[in-house]
Amino acid sequence: MPAPCDVVVVGAGLSGLYAARLLASAGIEVMVLEAQNRVGGRTLTTYFGDGTFVDDGGQWISPGQHCIVKLADELGVRLFPSWSDGAMVHWRAGVRAVSNGLFLPEDGNSAAATHEAAKVLSEMAETFPPEEPWAAPESAQWDRTTLHSWLATHVTSEPARRVLATSIEGVFARNSMPTSLLAALFWIRCGDPLTPFLTTNDPGPERRFDGGAQQLSQRMADALGERVLLNAAVTTIAQDSDGVRITAAQRSISAQRAVVAMPPALAGRIHYQPALPALRDHLTQRVPMRWAIKVHCLYGRRFWTDEGLSGQVVSDAGAVRVCADNSPPSGTPGVLVGFIEEAEASRVAKFPPRERRAEVLAAFVRYFGPMAGEPLEYLEKNWGDDAFCRGVDGGYWPAGVWTGYGASLRAPIGRLHWAGTETASIWNGKMEGALLAGRRAAEEVLSAIS
Amino acid sequence: MPAPCDVVVVGAGLSGLYAARLLASAGIEVMVLEAQNRVGGRTLTTYFGDGTFVDDGGQWISPGQHCIVKLADELGVRLFPSWSDGAMVHWRAGVRAVSNGLFLPEDGNSAAATHEAAKVLSEMAETFPPEEPWAAPESAQWDRTTLHSWLATHVTSEPARRVLATSIEGVFARNSMPTSLLAALFWIRCGDPLTPFLTTNDPGPERRFDGGAQQLSQRMADALGERVLLNAAVTTIAQDSDGVRITAAQRSISAQRAVVAMPPALAGRIHYQPALPALRDHLTQRVPMRWAIKVHCLYGRRFWTDEGLSGQVVSDAGAVRVCADNSPPSGTPGVLVGFIEEAEASRVAKFPPRERRAEVLAAFVRYFGPMAGEPLEYLEKNWGDDAFCRGVDGGYWPAGVWTGYGASLRAPIGRLHWAGTETASIWNGKMEGALLAGRRAAEEVLSAIS
Repeated sequence: MPAPCDVVVVGAGLSGLYAARLLASAGIEVMVLEAQNRVGGRTLTTYFGDGTFVDDGGQWISPGQHCIVKLADELGVRLFPSWSDGAMVHWRAGVRAVSNGLFLPEDGNSAAATHEAAKVLSEMAETFPPEEPWAAPESAQWDRTTLHSWLATHVTSEPARRVLATSIEGVFARNSMPTSLLAALFWIRCGDPLTPFLTTNDPGPERRFDGGAQQLSQRMADALGERVLLNAAVTTIAQDSDGVRITAAQRSISAQRAVVAMPPALAGRIHYQPALPALRDHLTQRVPMRWAIKVHCLYGRRFWTDEGLSGQVVSDAGAVRVCADNSPPSGTPGVLVGFIEEAEASRVAKFPPRERRAEVLAAFVRYFGPMAGEPLEYLEKNWGDDAFCRGVDGGYWPAGVWTGYGASLRAPIGRLHWAGTETASIWNGKMEGALLAGRRAAEEVLSAIS
Repeated sequence: MPAPCDVVVVGAGLSGLYAARLLASAGIEVMVLEAQNRVGGRTLTTYFGDGTFVDDGGQWISPGQHCIVKLADELGVRLFPSWSDGAMVHWRAGVRAVSNGLFLPEDGNSAAATHEAAKVLSEMAETFPPEEPWAAPESAQWDRTTLHSWLATHVTSEPARRVLATSIEGVFARNSMPTSLLAALFWIRCGDPLTPFLTTNDPGPERRFDGGAQQLSQRMADALGERVLLNAAVTTIAQDSDGVRITAAQRSISAQRAVVAMPPALAGRIHYQPALPALRDHLTQRVPMRWAIKVHCLYGRRFWTDEGLSGQVVSDAGAVRVCADNSPPSGTPGVLVGFIEEAEASRVAKFPPRERRAEVLAAFVRYFGPMAGEPLEYLEKNWGDDAFCRGVDGGYWPAGVWTGYGASLRAPIGRLHWAGTETASIWNGKMEGALLAGRRAAEEVLSAIS
């Protein structure tokens, strides 16, 4: 039975640990309770037999994500540019093509059409503050339709529609639950998915962490020491006028306040006393996680660069439709990463491992040739099976959820505060968003306690 | 610490209690664990000061619902025809009108258009078995679109579209999360929402239970006696090759098998060991409950019948858009019921009680005249606030859920079986569906145990 503390943080992902770090540095007695036997949440670094690291979870940071760069510097974790030079493989309607950009020659003036539509969407996204996507005059209407139906009506070029959808919705553009137009505008407002189409200034490359993204959480947890408890799944959070009482794995911990640093869908599985207000509870029922399987193949060298390929793929068929070069900073050995999303994830998750691996490798061979079919090693992580994550990217926002329930996303409830990247108003769904949300929650707590 | 039993049923709503009743009558040792301090789940009978009963939850049974009629007979609960004779009040674009049917004179040939569309929809719904809505050749396509977009494309008469939507989606036609076309076809397949437009045979009236619908659960629980434990919220269900172990409110109970008789959204909040397979877990994230507030007003007599009104309302504005006559079998006193749905529920839930009551009464006055503004008593039940129900009707099925996750709705997982009306293939979402699902789960258990 640990001693009472000032603040309990539920969840030792990036968001919870960063909140705890800031609170501890402000002299607050803090405890972090983590359900799993590891920290990092949806960042998870793993290793091939030869010691080469790969990230099974979040890994890329974009230009403009300053908070995570500063944290990495504090923690002594080095950044390096992601391997992305070279041409992209396109797989369309059963045909392979190679191009230096997002379009193929037969796409005609699609780049111009993309630019035009990106301008319009960006202007629409500017009509609300990122903290309140429901506040634009047209929010209700935008939340009743989907991004895809807006694109179908406003963009005649099919390749432009595809590129815009993929840019805005990330690698998960083929959602089983279509993103509302308002949710898409929020992604635009809170990140930079359309910047490449709106500026000619090179923003610089995406970057990765040398040694993996999970190091950030591990080093924050190391600094917090015994204030982080693993294998402590929180089942109940009770609060009254005196404080909060958290029950986790036979333990009961008292505190002044609690920060719940979990995605809404998972935060809803805790038993709250008193029960959560209806608006907040119903939000947790309406923002499901995105199911994805991430696969990595290890090769002796980056053989795809012989052909001038970047390792990047956009494909319209098969289990793996998005790939990238995930080799370590030295460039040796070679590593390819592939994403299996939603309907494809649920389809191949049922297969025996050998069969699933065969289907993945067949896709890699279609994209990169026969050498891709003979990896030295093969790794996979099914986030749908991860009982305390259930997905890797930010949650879905189906039609009607932002306007109907968004107001409860961040609003503290008595002594409870909400963190996690899904509550970020900037870089929502990203690692940067996780930190910003953790910082915002820590600031709420500090101002309430002091 | 109760003695081990054969089967634990989680949830003492209609479905769980009926499963337990059937198991007990087959000689199985059964325990029912209920989180609340009452049985009945989403059936809940309450009383005005004068003793007049009203149902805050499920209350109407339709012609063709044989299982619940048989159960009522076994339990000695009497049925009576719902008060529905007379004309309906229509409130459209700020104007009140009265009509003997679902249409007004200015709606022209909408009745014929409704009949035509109902025929087409019924034929579409016949292309899959009710147990497998994902099995029709066009299921995937139907699950990507919504009922409303199908109606917009195929039915030119606006009144016909409105009547069809309301008939299929029930009183909750203005969903914040639009029903997929496939989900709508499933409602058609598994119930009778279009029968009134397809036949001239009078199927007979909807009926209610004299004394309230909760009596069914109360009497089943009385018969089960000490085998029903109240205030026993289940937090963990563990299973291995030897059996299941259920943790609920300091108790731990062992059994051979468990029946979870809860809606998927709430069943997902239990902690399972081992964790649920991804497909089942993700289903629980994608079928939210429907938030509704039910209000009742008590009057000295059924004054609306003076004008020949049935008490039924369809309205396109305000907090209360659906009303009915909920007077007791004797016809005295008079009782009106109103439904406040989803966006309106979340809007008025924030009001102080006096303000919410004023808005409800203002709506009743618009529909029924000044006498409706002076009830002897006013009752309300906000199902969104009910921590162990969170809604009253069956869950939503947004686009993509049936085809992507439907296969996990009923499939047992090891020693776990799923009941609850959301798992019914006939009368899904209704009280009859709850019983049929409970019976199906009991049969699964019996065939596994014997």
